[in-house]
Amino acid sequence: MAGQTMVCVDDFERFAQKHLARNVFDYYRSGANLEETLKDNREAFKRYKIRPRVLRDVSHRNLSTTILGEKIDFPICIAPTAMQKMAHPDGEIATAKAAAKMKTLMCLSSWATCSFEEVAEADPNGLKWFQLYIYKDREATAQLVRRAEKAGYKAIALTVDTPILGRRYADVRNKFQLPPHLSLANFDNEDKHATGVKSTNDSGLAAYVASLIDPSLNWEHVEWLKSITKLPIVVKGILTAEDALEALNHGIAGILVSNHGARQLDGVPATIDVLSEVVQAVNGQVEVYLDGGVRTGTDVLKAIALGAKCVFLGRPALWGLAYNGKEGVQQVLQIIKDEFSLAMALSGCCTVSDIKPSLVSRHSYDWCKL
Amino acid sequence: MAGQTMVCVDDFERFAQKHLARNVFDYYRSGANLEETLKDNREAFKRYKIRPRVLRDVSHRNLSTTILGEKIDFPICIAPTAMQKMAHPDGEIATAKAAAKMKTLMCLSSWATCSFEEVAEADPNGLKWFQLYIYKDREATAQLVRRAEKAGYKAIALTVDTPILGRRYADVRNKFQLPPHLSLANFDNEDKHATGVKSTNDSGLAAYVASLIDPSLNWEHVEWLKSITKLPIVVKGILTAEDALEALNHGIAGILVSNHGARQLDGVPATIDVLSEVVQAVNGQVEVYLDGGVRTGTDVLKAIALGAKCVFLGRPALWGLAYNGKEGVQQVLQIIKDEFSLAMALSGCCTVSDIKPSLVSRHSYDWCKL
Amino acid sequence: MAGQTMVCVDDFERFAQKHLARNVFDYYRSGANLEETLKDNREAFKRYKIRPRVLRDVSHRNLSTTILGEKIDFPICIAPTAMQKMAHPDGEIATAKAAAKMKTLMCLSSWATCSFEEVAEADPNGLKWFQLYIYKDREATAQLVRRAEKAGYKAIALTVDTPILGRRYADVRNKFQLPPHLSLANFDNEDKHATGVKSTNDSGLAAYVASLIDPSLNWEHVEWLKSITKLPIVVKGILTAEDALEALNHGIAGILVSNHGARQLDGVPATIDVLSEVVQAVNGQVEVYLDGGVRTGTDVLKAIALGAKCVFLGRPALWGLAYNGKEGVQQVLQIIKDEFSLAMALSGCCTVSDIKPSLVSRHSYDWCKL
Amino acid sequence: MAGQTMVCVDDFERFAQKHLARNVFDYYRSGANLEETLKDNREAFKRYKIRPRVLRDVSHRNLSTTILGEKIDFPICIAPTAMQKMAHPDGEIATAKAAAKMKTLMCLSSWATCSFEEVAEADPNGLKWFQLYIYKDREATAQLVRRAEKAGYKAIALTVDTPILGRRYADVRNKFQLPPHLSLANFDNEDKHATGVKSTNDSGLAAYVASLIDPSLNWEHVEWLKSITKLPIVVKGILTAEDALEALNHGIAGILVSNHGARQLDGVPATIDVLSEVVQAVNGQVEVYLDGGVRTGTDVLKAIALGAKCVFLGRPALWGLAYNGKEGVQQVLQIIKDEFSLAMALSGCCTVSDIKPSLVSRHSYDWCKL
Ligand SMILES: Cc1cc2nc3c(=O)[nH]c(=O)nc-3n(C[C@H](O)[C@H](O)[C@H](O)COP(=O)(O)O)c2cc1C
Ligand SMILES: Cc1cc2nc3c(=O)[nH]c(=O)nc-3n(C[C@H](O)[C@H](O)[C@H](O)COP(=O)(O)O)c2cc1C
Ligand SMILES: Cc1cc2nc3c(=O)[nH]c(=O)nc-3n(C[C@H](O)[C@H](O)[C@H](O)COP(=O)(O)O)c2cc1C
Ligand SMILES: Cc1cc2nc3c(=O)[nH]c(=O)nc-3n(C[C@H](O)[C@H](O)[C@H](O)COP(=O)(O)O)c2cc1C
Repeated sequence: MAGQTMVCVDDFERFAQKHLARNVFDYYRSGANLEETLKDNREAFKRYKIRPRVLRDVSHRNLSTTILGEKIDFPICIAPTAMQKMAHPDGEIATAKAAAKMKTLMCLSSWATCSFEEVAEADPNGLKWFQLYIYKDREATAQLVRRAEKAGYKAIALTVDTPILGRRYADVRNKFQLPPHLSLANFDNEDKHATGVKSTNDSGLAAYVASLIDPSLNWEHVEWLKSITKLPIVVKGILTAEDALEALNHGIAGILVSNHGARQLDGVPATIDVLSEVVQAVNGQVEVYLDGGVRTGTDVLKAIALGAKCVFLGRPALWGLAYNGKEGVQQVLQIIKDEFSLAMALSGCCTVSDIKPSLVSRHSYDWCKL
Repeated sequence: MAGQTMVCVDDFERFAQKHLARNVFDYYRSGANLEETLKDNREAFKRYKIRPRVLRDVSHRNLSTTILGEKIDFPICIAPTAMQKMAHPDGEIATAKAAAKMKTLMCLSSWATCSFEEVAEADPNGLKWFQLYIYKDREATAQLVRRAEKAGYKAIALTVDTPILGRRYADVRNKFQLPPHLSLANFDNEDKHATGVKSTNDSGLAAYVASLIDPSLNWEHVEWLKSITKLPIVVKGILTAEDALEALNHGIAGILVSNHGARQLDGVPATIDVLSEVVQAVNGQVEVYLDGGVRTGTDVLKAIALGAKCVFLGRPALWGLAYNGKEGVQQVLQIIKDEFSLAMALSGCCTVSDIKPSLVSRHSYDWCKL
Repeated sequence: MAGQTMVCVDDFERFAQKHLARNVFDYYRSGANLEETLKDNREAFKRYKIRPRVLRDVSHRNLSTTILGEKIDFPICIAPTAMQKMAHPDGEIATAKAAAKMKTLMCLSSWATCSFEEVAEADPNGLKWFQLYIYKDREATAQLVRRAEKAGYKAIALTVDTPILGRRYADVRNKFQLPPHLSLANFDNEDKHATGVKSTNDSGLAAYVASLIDPSLNWEHVEWLKSITKLPIVVKGILTAEDALEALNHGIAGILVSNHGARQLDGVPATIDVLSEVVQAVNGQVEVYLDGGVRTGTDVLKAIALGAKCVFLGRPALWGLAYNGKEGVQQVLQIIKDEFSLAMALSGCCTVSDIKPSLVSRHSYDWCKL
Repeated sequence: MAGQTMVCVDDFERFAQKHLARNVFDYYRSGANLEETLKDNREAFKRYKIRPRVLRDVSHRNLSTTILGEKIDFPICIAPTAMQKMAHPDGEIATAKAAAKMKTLMCLSSWATCSFEEVAEADPNGLKWFQLYIYKDREATAQLVRRAEKAGYKAIALTVDTPILGRRYADVRNKFQLPPHLSLANFDNEDKHATGVKSTNDSGLAAYVASLIDPSLNWEHVEWLKSITKLPIVVKGILTAEDALEALNHGIAGILVSNHGARQLDGVPATIDVLSEVVQAVNGQVEVYLDGGVRTGTDVLKAIALGAKCVFLGRPALWGLAYNGKEGVQQVLQIIKDEFSLAMALSGCCTVSDIKPSLVSRHSYDWCKL
């Protein structure tokens, strides 16, 4: 790895493509079905153009912001992605250390290959959230919440777009399963909750979800969750104004505009294309975040101009991990942070709050409801 | 065939391309002229995006619906396509069995290589329509209708876009003809109606149509048809509000928005692009269906959101047939049904009637009449 | 040539590309500069979609129309293109015979390699126009008009877009010149008017135009032309409403919306994109025609729906000529005529006057003047 | 080089690509980050179409105009580009001679590899501006201004888009640095201002800017500049109406709409797409110019129609220089001048002031502020 010049996030993806086992890379990279939305998540950012302001003293820039009241050094966090030990033996521990080092937030997946406690101990000062899937086994679910609370996780990101797993052709073709030496570390080692990502004749993960995750996922689960924890709840996976308003009614603390990295329902809009709709509906009442296709500093700038409080990175952290464990994740974060800082400078912004809607324009042919 | 993982409809097309005789595959695949509309039938679906709703209990989904009052298990039917024995020796019988097994509707072509009666006997419980071309020989035409009635077909789909056959370059180049061991089974074995798809120096089918089909096809034929049968009549091949209103005036029972799989007039719109126009004109008075380019579960979802009661599959059934006869067709139906079910789940719909217009958005640059 | 199936116009172009000398093919094919408009002339037709009407008796179709009062069998004429003997030894004579045979109009170029008289005698019943360039030598110009009149040409198409020749890179690179055994046949054999298309270090045609054609071309030339002939004058090369209105003020008899096959100024709109603007300005006072990129029957249908009285073919006739002289041109005309006839049938039109604006729709994002 | 036909600007770029050292070519060619804006600078011109007027006497065309009151023979000037000796040993001297020969303006970069005085002496009659970067060392900056004044430069183009250098991946990968035998000639030979473009582990130029250029660049620098010189000040790098109005308030003499050849902030609009916005804000109070992607005569025509007084060429001059020093630059200027002259002729314009907004149209889907 040494000696290579890693200039941008795509360099890390290229590296991962070359060095990871094919079925692992495929699992990380792929989107649902024909990957129309996967492509659009990236393309959509190009439809927004930056209107840079000049001749403002940008010699000192402050990229820091807060997320649910906690300070972070820059508005770029790490999204929950499953089974990181497939990318690097240190797995989620490495990612957590990198995030803590960079003073930003990491959100840990329910399906992590390191446990809450391991990850929390990796760097006790690191700011962490916990991403939750609701299992049919309600007690097992509550158990996850209690352990997360105890380990110091600051919020629960409830994933609401996965009552059933999306259909990712590559995983079906590869009969994807978790390698036998790994397990989902937040569950008892021999339990099917931990070892169930096994291939039938299909994607092993799809089978896992079908057998264990609660497909009846609905707002009552949100109410139940509120009843068992004091942690703030962020709903992850909202794409419409209607659901944003519902979320407000149910007292959630934040909304993560996400299409699950285009891995659930192909044919949904790119996240950046619906961000404004959600931001307008929410009208400042709670924080709104975005993930999906963020790869460069200008993507971050655009999302913030359009109303996101922070953005989250999914795959980029995995590519960094595959490249060089903790160092790799840190490098990826550093690159996008630097790009974002440069983008702020070159568009005339000294603080995150200087990034106003007028900084971005787009083609006027807009989405319309029929 | 065994051992292959067939993941999506395109896998079946690729298989067919490899295993069918070139001129057969070409006949099935091709569209009219430069195939602009053929391409657009697929591309157009991408212009519509799904606005998924979350946190609705989607654990139990009911995909069933009715078509002209008959119950089907899911709103995906089989469009009439000619000469299916070229794809598989069992031909239309296999297709009919697959449709019946899946509890959906099959529409049999006038140009089937199995007869009404053979197809009806294949699975007597199968729901079937009969697609009609009006022959110059009015008595032969009436004969078809009477046999269809007697064999239990439930409706007549009158194809209105084919007074003359469209020009499909591949068929002209290949001098396409029906292989000598096959004939159009709904006619007397030695009759030119049965054996006339022979190549002159052109597409044999174009020559057949020119010599036998009535190019004067007009609304009086519809009236005549009503006078000789009690079966409900669906007009297949309407693309404008104007013609939809005419159809209402002539007491038809349903409208199939279709451009004949882009095989008749190149340069017409993709069917999904005109569906709304027709649906609005019809205003709920009769059922509206769509075919053309439907390949995935989200295509089905979009068409239904835009007002279609059901969709029809043309080529996908042929690819299934080529892959593995009845089993292949069934597999294709199963895949799209499963994708549709998943798309309903992931967009928050439990029943077909939950699929509302607000579920879909599109770019606002719309068609306009000049 | 025998044995090949020529299915569409593009087949003839492919043949020409293979069989013509490279510099001749290049001269015929190329457009100005980066060929942006050349490409757009074709692409633009795809932006217009046909809204076909069904169930109208289309068994008898009449494609005939009139052009400046003369009857032609179908609204597809032959545009003036220079130096046709490079494509086939029979040159313009072959083209004229083909047009006459098909009962349509041919417009002969000023730069023909056969003379007026030869072409007129080829088929005395053929309807012909004469395309005029204004030479600096006014008397030589008047001479052309007098000879055209005498030889029975029915109108003068005054090309107004060529005060200077457009820059066609291929011709510059090839140092294009008229082969020595050919000359511009409407001039004295030894005269520079006849033999001047010689290469300097540039395109020989560009040099020819620069030295002999009047770059001061303006409306007074139109008045002068009216003063020396009773023939109706059609202006060829108008692309704006403003110039169309000027043309009306100067009493011209027809307007040919043309960008000279994208060979003059790269970056102008596709002709089909400005047709409506001109048609609306003219408001029925004179006939409006179109050329540029017409290759299929549906292109013809669209142009007529948008208000053109007829269309003209440039390159397609050259490709036909290169394929097989008179027979080749006739084949090309027959193919496009047949396609047009089929397009009329499949869109519900029995006569040319049935082709109404409502037959065509387009995306609503339209051109706007800034 | 002799014997090659150089037909258009792209020919020179292709030559340069073949003959320059890779890292030099990369430095010249590349844009910031993913080069989205680099591509768009070219693509955007295609979105504007020319509406040509015909039958106006265009035999005599006058391309001359003025820039800040000085006459130039045609409205195409040379943009400041750094380190031209890498392209040809004569460097900026050759470029200056070519511009003077063609009677147009050259703007010299702060980072020239020839000094003010050398360049001024190259052709004392040549019209020249001086492009200024503000150094942290205010006295060194003032020194540049004084020397430029003394050497007869007529205006200062203050680059306002570069408080920090944009990130150009190629330069980072190549660890770009100024070859050791060259230095920035406007500084003392041993000074870091002259020799500082050295590679660290990054782009040497980025490091240079970071260490020496003032990142606090703001409107007070403009005021300071006005206080130390009587030369008119043009701000180079404005892309919004808001900043244009600010510039008017600060008494600048001209605005150069520029995105620095897409080398600073990727994701900003193409310059031609924001020209109208700036022109409308300025409302004739000062001159507005444009650079970015101008490669053909029709690009020039479009920019002038949209309100630019002149355009500037960046890379094209470098390609000319690489091809053949002074002669090469002159050839490039001649080609674009000739193309522009031809475009004027073919669109009916005899003088630059004939080039009106109505000469250009564009798709109506326009940019909108959100
Ligand atoms: C390999 C992979 C695994 C993921 N696992 C989870 C998960 O366990 N829980 C979850 O809520 N989201 C998961 N996601 C979605 C991410 O949280 C995030 O929404 C998405 O990756 C953002 O898009 P991006 O990858 O383009 O940055 C996963 C995404 C990927 C790529
Ligand atoms: C090979 C083939 C044969 C067809 N034969 C008939 C036919 O006999 N009668 C008819 O009304 N439509 C016929 N169609 C049109 C289909 O009914 C249907 O409109 C079309 O295939 C739908 O588009 P799709 O193939 O993209 O699903 C045929 C289509 C194909 C591809
Ligand atoms: C090889 C060639 C030569 C042409 N010569 C002439 C000509 O002599 N006079 C003229 O008015 N137009 C001339 N044209 C333009 C045609 O009349 C016509 O406008 C154009 O070819 C129509 O576009 P199309 O080739 O796409 O059909 C020429 C076009 C071509 C391709
Ligand atoms: C190699 C190169 C060096 C440049 N150096 C400078 C510079 O020193 N100062 C400056 O203001 N602009 C500089 N520019 C920007 C140009 O002045 C101009 O804005 C840009 O090149 C115009 O775009 P074009 O190259 O597409 O014509 C440079 C551009 C290039 C390509």
